[in-house]
Amino acid sequence: MIKIGFLGMGIVGSAAVDILNNNKDIISQRVGKQCIVKTICVKDISKKRTVDLKTATLTTNPDDVINDPEIDIVIEVIGGEFPKKWLLQALKNGKHVVTANKELVSKAKQELIDATHEKQTFLMFEAAVGGGIPVIQSLSTALGANSMQSIFGILNGTTNFILTKIDEEGKDFAPVLKEAQDLGFAEANPHMDVSGLDAAYKLDILAAIAFQKNVGLEHIFYEGIENIQLKDINNARDLGYKIKLLGIGKKVEKGFVFKVHPCLIPKAHPIASVANEFNAVFVQGDAVGDSMLYGKGAGGFPTASAIVGDVIKIVQSKFCNTRKLESYTPVSIDDTDSKFYLRLSCNDTYGVIEKIAKVFSDNKISLEKFFQKDVKEEIAELVFLTHSSLERNMKNAVNKLKSIDDVLNVETVLRVELDD
Amino acid sequence: MIKIGFLGMGIVGSAAVDILNNNKDIISQRVGKQCIVKTICVKDISKKRTVDLKTATLTTNPDDVINDPEIDIVIEVIGGEFPKKWLLQALKNGKHVVTANKELVSKAKQELIDATHEKQTFLMFEAAVGGGIPVIQSLSTALGANSMQSIFGILNGTTNFILTKIDEEGKDFAPVLKEAQDLGFAEANPHMDVSGLDAAYKLDILAAIAFQKNVGLEHIFYEGIENIQLKDINNARDLGYKIKLLGIGKKVEKGFVFKVHPCLIPKAHPIASVANEFNAVFVQGDAVGDSMLYGKGAGGFPTASAIVGDVIKIVQSKFCNTRKLESYTPVSIDDTDSKFYLRLSCNDTYGVIEKIAKVFSDNKISLEKFFQKDVKEEIAELVFLTHSSLERNMKNAVNKLKSIDDVLNVETVLRVELDD
Repeated sequence: MIKIGFLGMGIVGSAAVDILNNNKDIISQRVGKQCIVKTICVKDISKKRTVDLKTATLTTNPDDVINDPEIDIVIEVIGGEFPKKWLLQALKNGKHVVTANKELVSKAKQELIDATHEKQTFLMFEAAVGGGIPVIQSLSTALGANSMQSIFGILNGTTNFILTKIDEEGKDFAPVLKEAQDLGFAEANPHMDVSGLDAAYKLDILAAIAFQKNVGLEHIFYEGIENIQLKDINNARDLGYKIKLLGIGKKVEKGFVFKVHPCLIPKAHPIASVANEFNAVFVQGDAVGDSMLYGKGAGGFPTASAIVGDVIKIVQSKFCNTRKLESYTPVSIDDTDSKFYLRLSCNDTYGVIEKIAKVFSDNKISLEKFFQKDVKEEIAELVFLTHSSLERNMKNAVNKLKSIDDVLNVETVLRVELDD
Repeated sequence: MIKIGFLGMGIVGSAAVDILNNNKDIISQRVGKQCIVKTICVKDISKKRTVDLKTATLTTNPDDVINDPEIDIVIEVIGGEFPKKWLLQALKNGKHVVTANKELVSKAKQELIDATHEKQTFLMFEAAVGGGIPVIQSLSTALGANSMQSIFGILNGTTNFILTKIDEEGKDFAPVLKEAQDLGFAEANPHMDVSGLDAAYKLDILAAIAFQKNVGLEHIFYEGIENIQLKDINNARDLGYKIKLLGIGKKVEKGFVFKVHPCLIPKAHPIASVANEFNAVFVQGDAVGDSMLYGKGAGGFPTASAIVGDVIKIVQSKFCNTRKLESYTPVSIDDTDSKFYLRLSCNDTYGVIEKIAKVFSDNKISLEKFFQKDVKEEIAELVFLTHSSLERNMKNAVNKLKSIDDVLNVETVLRVELDD
């Protein structure tokens, strides 16, 4: 059994406890152990908690977490610089540390990494960059064989939401910022996000992981989106570009440059289509070529997904590695629903459409769209898009359609996916 | 020092050796150890090799790899079912195994996983699905806390290349397949790719990793792209869709369904813009929400990137974890080049454009595009897109532009990125 202690229990911490509760079977299948929360250090014990803390003990004393010899893994979700001494102590005590704290990791990364050496512990911070996107683990491990040429990241969801709305709704910066604040996508004080500072902390962490370089915020140029106007976004569109706030690290002639600023990127580039509060990191490695990771960059559950992912990594690596797959016979495709696209060739005669429509309705298939194309030599092509229908019913319908005299052929039947 | 043995040395194996040679400093920084290739088992020792094998010994006897007590990690790049007994023996001997072999992992996954238990070894197969995309490690670890609702993957680069070309060039399946074969994107016998079988093997592996289910190819419905016609792709476009060959695993009412077939997906969906030989895996998890991994799905170096990434994972987990960042002062942004977008407001008078043009040329800035917009109350807005220029020169130019009498303001200066 792996015992976990928390420092802090806000939105992200609560979501992490929820995941550990709700997905405990999935997690223990992956790591071969039970992971349970033993102790949680909070500011206010009497505060009402919405999450089920099970048998976990609440305390206001961080020593109850970092000095408890039973605790294997410490998760820090407080934020800011001041938990540093606690994390150093936890590492010194042989505990693995998982943190979502971008400011602290940016400022104290080498000191924290050094503290892992003595007891061979893990320091993990997947949640500090790109929320639930598996960018830190991927860059340090699965993509770790590459000499990275460049990284381009949409690292801040708030600013990407604002730029998307300016673009899509044709409004200017100020009213869109207000809307983002009302929707909870921007803070009351938006400075940290809007100025590029948040993205600069994250870029500094990516510099350490992708390029093994300790850069520091003081060497990172950053510029925000406060001055982006609707007309610039419109001009950019006319020129074939989108405007995005990017964190960029790249090889140049004399070394590497690290910078955060709004910039124009070609519309067809994969990162140009990353919209709203989504984040993405696009990397170019000498072996892997172009690669991109995309997902939600903020929010309690996406961030907590990364935190518990770090716990899984630690337990898989340091403890056990037993995995048993469940032998499984999946549901037959016949019993599943899809929207369907059909193309039929028919004699262009009276009554054929009525017969086709009857086959569909006899098989409980209703139509979303329908058009006729290219009548050539008295042969018409009919295209149908159905509403969601049972595969088995569609099979029957197709057989019936083939038996209609004036239907020459059911040329194509395709399923529609990801359309809801 | 970590010693590696290879079974097989074709295109992928050679690329892996190249990466281990060329990026040895990056890799040893990541894992705190040197990784060297000790022994390589090949069919024909006398064959000319293009890759520098350094001090590695060539042999035709697999026992020299799998039974050598000095070898820590065995990399298998032969393919097909017959290396199974060798991998089982290597695992039994306490060696970690890395393989790119989708057919073998699909057919023998439980047997291979079981063989890792006795000696607590790793079985890694990142390269078997999605080439260099870090999908296996991400699903099993960083995203492993999620109860996955669905996976949608473009898992075969050949078919995606063909579908993209039909769409973009308006040709039909047969001539595009021929073109793909000439370019090396499709095999002389394209059946494995075109029929969906290759994608079905990969989906079977994803089912094991994302859903912990041992499904088997016999329970996976698969259908290829042989019957997709240009007119279907055109009809789909008219209906607002792209046609892609997807491997799909998803929760349905009665359980999970696993299937591979061409399908229509909405144009605006992130996976719809995955073009040519690129692969992508789009997942929906209960915690992380929507997430996508994108990159090159095949080819020697992308596949080898995944193989060496698996080696890194094993060494990081099982051996040492010392990491030292390099303290680094990056190149100043002033010394870097970008294309720039500028918007200026000016008095709409004679001669102002000439003065502006002189400032640009004095600072070695040349223009790619230029337009004038919205003359209102005798104020004109000028928009410039420059060719690549030095940041420092642009700073000077902007200061000079501000001092021109008829230039009222330099409203916006933005950099262009990812445009080459």
